[in-house]
Amino acid sequence: MAIEAGRSPTSSRQERIRLGMVGGGQGAFIGAVHRIAARLDDRYTLVAGALSSDPERARRSAEALGLDPERAYASFAEMAKAEAARPDGIEAVSIVTPNHMHAPAAKAFLEAGIHVICDKPLAVSVAEAQALIALQRQTGRIVALTHNYTGYPMVREARARVQAGELGTIRLVQMEYAQDWLTERAELSGSKQAEWRTDPKRSGGGGCIGDIGTHAFNLGAFVSGLEPESLLAELTTFVEGRALDDDVRVLLRYRGGAKGLLWASQVAVGNENAVSLKVYGTRGGLEWRQEEPNQLWVTPFGSPKQLVTRNGAGAGEASRRVSRIPPGHPEGYLEGFANIYSEVAEVILAARENRAPDPAVTFPTLADGLNGMRFIETAIRSSNNANTWTQFE
Amino acid sequence: MAIEAGRSPTSSRQERIRLGMVGGGQGAFIGAVHRIAARLDDRYTLVAGALSSDPERARRSAEALGLDPERAYASFAEMAKAEAARPDGIEAVSIVTPNHMHAPAAKAFLEAGIHVICDKPLAVSVAEAQALIALQRQTGRIVALTHNYTGYPMVREARARVQAGELGTIRLVQMEYAQDWLTERAELSGSKQAEWRTDPKRSGGGGCIGDIGTHAFNLGAFVSGLEPESLLAELTTFVEGRALDDDVRVLLRYRGGAKGLLWASQVAVGNENAVSLKVYGTRGGLEWRQEEPNQLWVTPFGSPKQLVTRNGAGAGEASRRVSRIPPGHPEGYLEGFANIYSEVAEVILAARENRAPDPAVTFPTLADGLNGMRFIETAIRSSNNANTWTQFE
Amino acid sequence: MAIEAGRSPTSSRQERIRLGMVGGGQGAFIGAVHRIAARLDDRYTLVAGALSSDPERARRSAEALGLDPERAYASFAEMAKAEAARPDGIEAVSIVTPNHMHAPAAKAFLEAGIHVICDKPLAVSVAEAQALIALQRQTGRIVALTHNYTGYPMVREARARVQAGELGTIRLVQMEYAQDWLTERAELSGSKQAEWRTDPKRSGGGGCIGDIGTHAFNLGAFVSGLEPESLLAELTTFVEGRALDDDVRVLLRYRGGAKGLLWASQVAVGNENAVSLKVYGTRGGLEWRQEEPNQLWVTPFGSPKQLVTRNGAGAGEASRRVSRIPPGHPEGYLEGFANIYSEVAEVILAARENRAPDPAVTFPTLADGLNGMRFIETAIRSSNNANTWTQFE
Amino acid sequence: MAIEAGRSPTSSRQERIRLGMVGGGQGAFIGAVHRIAARLDDRYTLVAGALSSDPERARRSAEALGLDPERAYASFAEMAKAEAARPDGIEAVSIVTPNHMHAPAAKAFLEAGIHVICDKPLAVSVAEAQALIALQRQTGRIVALTHNYTGYPMVREARARVQAGELGTIRLVQMEYAQDWLTERAELSGSKQAEWRTDPKRSGGGGCIGDIGTHAFNLGAFVSGLEPESLLAELTTFVEGRALDDDVRVLLRYRGGAKGLLWASQVAVGNENAVSLKVYGTRGGLEWRQEEPNQLWVTPFGSPKQLVTRNGAGAGEASRRVSRIPPGHPEGYLEGFANIYSEVAEVILAARENRAPDPAVTFPTLADGLNGMRFIETAIRSSNNANTWTQFE
Repeated sequence: MAIEAGRSPTSSRQERIRLGMVGGGQGAFIGAVHRIAARLDDRYTLVAGALSSDPERARRSAEALGLDPERAYASFAEMAKAEAARPDGIEAVSIVTPNHMHAPAAKAFLEAGIHVICDKPLAVSVAEAQALIALQRQTGRIVALTHNYTGYPMVREARARVQAGELGTIRLVQMEYAQDWLTERAELSGSKQAEWRTDPKRSGGGGCIGDIGTHAFNLGAFVSGLEPESLLAELTTFVEGRALDDDVRVLLRYRGGAKGLLWASQVAVGNENAVSLKVYGTRGGLEWRQEEPNQLWVTPFGSPKQLVTRNGAGAGEASRRVSRIPPGHPEGYLEGFANIYSEVAEVILAARENRAPDPAVTFPTLADGLNGMRFIETAIRSSNNANTWTQFE
Repeated sequence: MAIEAGRSPTSSRQERIRLGMVGGGQGAFIGAVHRIAARLDDRYTLVAGALSSDPERARRSAEALGLDPERAYASFAEMAKAEAARPDGIEAVSIVTPNHMHAPAAKAFLEAGIHVICDKPLAVSVAEAQALIALQRQTGRIVALTHNYTGYPMVREARARVQAGELGTIRLVQMEYAQDWLTERAELSGSKQAEWRTDPKRSGGGGCIGDIGTHAFNLGAFVSGLEPESLLAELTTFVEGRALDDDVRVLLRYRGGAKGLLWASQVAVGNENAVSLKVYGTRGGLEWRQEEPNQLWVTPFGSPKQLVTRNGAGAGEASRRVSRIPPGHPEGYLEGFANIYSEVAEVILAARENRAPDPAVTFPTLADGLNGMRFIETAIRSSNNANTWTQFE
Repeated sequence: MAIEAGRSPTSSRQERIRLGMVGGGQGAFIGAVHRIAARLDDRYTLVAGALSSDPERARRSAEALGLDPERAYASFAEMAKAEAARPDGIEAVSIVTPNHMHAPAAKAFLEAGIHVICDKPLAVSVAEAQALIALQRQTGRIVALTHNYTGYPMVREARARVQAGELGTIRLVQMEYAQDWLTERAELSGSKQAEWRTDPKRSGGGGCIGDIGTHAFNLGAFVSGLEPESLLAELTTFVEGRALDDDVRVLLRYRGGAKGLLWASQVAVGNENAVSLKVYGTRGGLEWRQEEPNQLWVTPFGSPKQLVTRNGAGAGEASRRVSRIPPGHPEGYLEGFANIYSEVAEVILAARENRAPDPAVTFPTLADGLNGMRFIETAIRSSNNANTWTQFE
Repeated sequence: MAIEAGRSPTSSRQERIRLGMVGGGQGAFIGAVHRIAARLDDRYTLVAGALSSDPERARRSAEALGLDPERAYASFAEMAKAEAARPDGIEAVSIVTPNHMHAPAAKAFLEAGIHVICDKPLAVSVAEAQALIALQRQTGRIVALTHNYTGYPMVREARARVQAGELGTIRLVQMEYAQDWLTERAELSGSKQAEWRTDPKRSGGGGCIGDIGTHAFNLGAFVSGLEPESLLAELTTFVEGRALDDDVRVLLRYRGGAKGLLWASQVAVGNENAVSLKVYGTRGGLEWRQEEPNQLWVTPFGSPKQLVTRNGAGAGEASRRVSRIPPGHPEGYLEGFANIYSEVAEVILAARENRAPDPAVTFPTLADGLNGMRFIETAIRSSNNANTWTQFE
């Protein structure tokens, strides 16, 4: 080991935040990711769960995770109620179910006064998202959305550089998210992930657009800071027999004249998780690829391209504060995900301690969730309406 | 030097083809490229020229190139006439003027019985292109179009693999061509290249779409073999005061259900000449980037990605026959361009010798030129019509 | 989120292993890495520490980590004794001090019957290492060494492919580890990392060779499975005034005729943590770079190069069992480090449960530590002896 | 086509230089490369040849190249004599035979007053090289050596930056040249290239070291400007039955304290023509790879890495003057090779015109050839002497 570390988000320590989880039982994937993310910087401890809608599986999953059997619940409703009543009840809950359960579960915990960390997309409709916003305003609890790609340090770096005006006026935002795991009907071969993601009952009206298109859209918005005005979308289902879209292409117009192009696909053979973002302005451009997340390419117009690395020379405070280890020691997906958890933790802990949270804290909120739902609904509407320009409501 | 060479297109030798050139005088760029391309495999000799519309510049340019002063003409019309009358007159002509002169010059030489190698785009309208097709049918002369990216060996390799069915049924064709040299108004700073390319009188109705969008479109068609049915385009002029588009995004629908996405831009800061093509089918995918032209990425669905290199292991006959040197010894832009010239030479020489040309010969022709014009006109129409789907005529 | 996860090492759950730490107080770097690594898969809980040789700093560090003040010790000797006496005493200890303290601390905990996880290099001399081996044999406790690069899944993949004979007989092992953080005298500018690493009293007789050269050497041995016979080394101190080497080049001869080349440097400007390994055999070759750790390049002789990715198509069991998330979702340095901790945990837990550990468990042990010390001492001897071939003892 | 071209070496034009060739008949590889290189910038015309030591093959080869049968010679001796006697005799000759013929042929043409462009290595011994130097001094003719990698624009850029002091004092020069084409006994399977390159009678005493090791050595010297003092080498023959080395590793010491490391191999599976150079100094570092020749990585210590591209932003005069086309339009191996020819042409033409040549002209000369021979002989001596440090004579 060799070089000075960047500042880590684990710099201080208090009693850990008591966390519950809805969904994420055995066989699920994203639940395990959330648990690692919560644990990584040591600010949460998992103490309760409603880990599956199948009671036996919920019980076995809770046991495997070492939860107190008393706090292994059969439903999120029961859990919200019981935990709210305990003196040592959970302070926050992670919701990692299929999409259709996100909003009902979030509602139950908000009403019980419990902070919510919810997987994306926030809901299955704009209306659901709006109702949550209204509810959140009443309760004052936090709702964070795990648009985890915004947790990557070099995405933070990109955003800070745009905010600082380094690119001049933004003209173009190019967003891509290409995968190939749905090239064939994986949903018929026993893949639970594929099953619910291609099922309108559990995913909502969008397939690829909700599953990964929203990630790309959110990433573009996060870095560019631009507000979308309208879009023109074409959703396609390439794989015969599939009910939802597996490929999406969207033209976007942002307030102020910038334009966006978003392509998301789950049938692009040779792509594993190829999220990328390119932003071009009057004075500079930048490019980032999720599969090499520790690198950000920055080009001031008329100068050579620069390779800015996480915690390396030229990296600024926005990325350093969410970096743990020195440049050249790659941090990855779990660390980016953990940054979302640690940012939320700072706000929860500040509230607990009656102090203002670090003003630099940044994480996706209900507003982002609502924008995501608007994006999905507007895109579906445009696609169903002969791919015509459609206003964001 | 180390390894066995691939077969070169320079394998046989006859008296060189006598070549003339229209445009390409001092200060021009693409003329020099054509001259190197013609010379590289030693099948042409430049003997006449109408190198500039400015007579003094034409004269000086011809002198610098060592042309016989008698064959340095003041206009292409004069040159076509005079050369057709000489027993040692040119057999072929390269047209490397601004776009608006392409079709008139091509017409003059075809009528004089002289083969034509024309820079792209072929013309400034579909009508002009159609008239050339009619004329070419009468004369039987060759018209080749220097969509030079189709001359790269690994583009040939990609096409051969698609034709062989390696990718299954094609679903997606992703075409990009990004540059940044028009990020500011270079046309006001004395760049001749920028001046005519942003001038509707000399470029035709399209800016970026004609200059580079057609290259990307042609590349997608060449490799995929798909025929476009309709498109939806948005042309944008980002730089204030500019008369033509400098950014283009196009959705495409091909016959048979495949879809295309094309983005071309001349204001994407940090991109020099970032042409890329990705093709995805039911059984495989491939990716190629012009700035690393000796590499083709191929992924059979469910297998690791493979890096196929020019003349390397796994490269097939289609790429080997247009390769000159061993793998790892990079060939570039000029070699790809030269392949177009050498392919055309084979046909001219075969005709001279009354034999059938090598059946493997491939180069862009009037049909491609017409498709290019259709692409431009259809895209402009769609863009002007609220970005709606518009049929290729 | 999108694709099925690989099997995670967190698949089962028991009471967490009680862990102590020596070194790693505030201002240290590698201590934080060890704590995250221990926590990531949720198999350890940190309950005691002798975190600094400075008592006040030890106390503050323990407080910040939330340790019971009673278990915040002023010295490792005191800690070993006290913890061994507690019914709930630590089962394992992480030693993350400067090098000269490794062996004394390891000795103290082994004698107290406590498992040891020790940062590399194991000791400051071969003799120290041998004494530890003798002691470990008596106690039966585990000593694991955090040669963490062997924890990366694609390093495991590489090793498995070599073991399976995919490369034929190995001929060449090329190891590199390049950094630039000691290009200037960082040790004079307040960098604690630089201070002790360039101080013979705390680092032992090797600078660069012990700090990073041993990592590269260990990586080559781990993947190739080859045993070194002799070496020829040149250690250089480029930065004036520095007491220890900052650049190392070593020729290696392995049993059976293979040859190795190792270059490690801390003055190679532009390199952050550029660890790489290339292995070439009679039938194939492979290449891995730490800064893109999820990729392994594999070339069967005469075939195209393949890009094998963590958990992707073609990746085998050896890498899958230490992967947590799907391909395209990068895992990094901390995950690789955590794999070492989780492998050790499996053995500790198996012992606790009186069962055989998973036979696939792999982590660096005292034998590797001894080899590392032999490498350092032999290299120093060769370097001091006019760079002549010197046998490994 | 899009952007302003760099200045091309083809900017002026005179009567072409009359060129002859020794070797390079049908079946040879490097001869065709030299012919393309000579032709590319249109400054040479091939008019005579002794293309093979097999008379029938020499005749057929000359015919295929369209040479006047009278000037198709059976031996280089005959050719030197006959051409020197003609008023239109050749002004320069390209020598592209196996190594053992280089010096005898060069001698014959120098004595005939004809400039020589010779493939590398210059000779098969230091003594031969020294004799040529003495002879060249008497005749005043040019001898250029096609260490073609020095013709790449970004290699020129690298050299200029070192000369300008951008890297400070050089500490490290890392040279690699890896191939895999001799992994098996290609010399037994009918590869003419492999046959003579592994035959001591035709290659001289070095195999890999002479064939490619000298290229890497020359490249390091060209860019760093350093003079070698001594070396320590290990030459290995991995493939059983082969007479010459197929793998080479060399430690170098340069005057002034810098150190070098050179690895060349022809059995490194997965490498096609992986030439690379890395130079590190007190203030900066740079890296170049031949397979991506249009890119140069430059890192000022403490700043982000920069990607400088041929003719792109930041590229200086040294690279621009040998570039033909805009950035992003890759130039490759043949263009780099052609730069050597065009540099030599400038000197020949200047002599013809009684003017001073462009002072920027740079090409490898007899001095480089002699250094190459010293490198080979010293390395063989060191390798045969238990790999001990050996002075350059």
